[in-house]
Amino acid sequence: MSYEVPALSKLIEHFERMPGIGRKTAQRMAFYVLSLPQEQSNEFSQAILEACKKIHRCKICQNITDCDVCTVCTDKSRDESVICVVEDATTMLAIEKTHEFNGLYHVLHGVISPIDSIGPEQLTIKELLYRLNGENVKEIIMATNPTVEGEMTAVYISKLLKPLGIKITRLAYGVPVGGELEYADSATLSRALFGRNEI
Amino acid sequence: MSYEVPALSKLIEHFERMPGIGRKTAQRMAFYVLSLPQEQSNEFSQAILEACKKIHRCKICQNITDCDVCTVCTDKSRDESVICVVEDATTMLAIEKTHEFNGLYHVLHGVISPIDSIGPEQLTIKELLYRLNGENVKEIIMATNPTVEGEMTAVYISKLLKPLGIKITRLAYGVPVGGELEYADSATLSRALFGRNEI
Repeated sequence: MSYEVPALSKLIEHFERMPGIGRKTAQRMAFYVLSLPQEQSNEFSQAILEACKKIHRCKICQNITDCDVCTVCTDKSRDESVICVVEDATTMLAIEKTHEFNGLYHVLHGVISPIDSIGPEQLTIKELLYRLNGENVKEIIMATNPTVEGEMTAVYISKLLKPLGIKITRLAYGVPVGGELEYADSATLSRALFGRNEI
Repeated sequence: MSYEVPALSKLIEHFERMPGIGRKTAQRMAFYVLSLPQEQSNEFSQAILEACKKIHRCKICQNITDCDVCTVCTDKSRDESVICVVEDATTMLAIEKTHEFNGLYHVLHGVISPIDSIGPEQLTIKELLYRLNGENVKEIIMATNPTVEGEMTAVYISKLLKPLGIKITRLAYGVPVGGELEYADSATLSRALFGRNEI
């Protein structure tokens, strides 16, 4: 005989569906929610609704935003001649955190992955092409993940953009800063060797 | 300049407040929620509200339930003469999973912890005492956590119950099954030695 409380099981299930959350963590999270004062649990519930209602994609770069056009695209201080193409909004945030990039972004919302039956038409590639028509873009930086799918997507888009005569670059491969060469995998190490720079 | 979307930041904050959830996981969870179809995100939001509205404490054992009296307390097949005292509902679930205990429970909802200014009056100790008056209880198993606070709470409650003449037991201390003696801490090891059994 099971002594489960349906309302609680349902909440646990919702948490369990999240990426990286197992049964035990989901349970702990649900009990945390139960322990909240009513006001806070209402706020939490409301925050989910609001985020899903208000947030959509930026008309230009497809980044998530609560306006028509996101704050990066409307920021006049940014260099409009460089576009960094990323897989998702989290990558964009990671690059923003470096404070080294002052251009614009284009968020693909995924990568080409035949195994998951995700083709180029499911990404925001046509929005990127449309963008390039109007804007005066000089360089496209392909910042997809260094995985097979990321690489494939970068190559696919590069080939599409070739005829436009825009310079297309890719993030450098190499050993991560602070890492130990001893533990670097051989693919990374050979790419680091290949891309060595004079000092 | 920050390019944060307020509705998203708010949602991330809510997730970040959860136990064991760091900034990155909270971010990933918020993005997961955004990626949900509207129907599912509504359901999720609703599940939080419902759980908080419907779930309260069982009148008898203080376990969480959506009825007046929880399903364990109403189950006539359980042995009413043994009560297992636990810190929280998750411990109860863990003990239930062993299928070795067929008595009733009493959930304290915490432990005595002067450092967090939690005294005995904040726990459900008076509900336990009230319960013992009516029911024909022969044994109380103290199953609080094997921590200083858990131990202290077990001792406190045992002293309170002594005059009632009920047998009070405590979970056995010892080395965990499947563990290696080499890595057992010395407190555990000495308790295991002290409590050794003839084979």
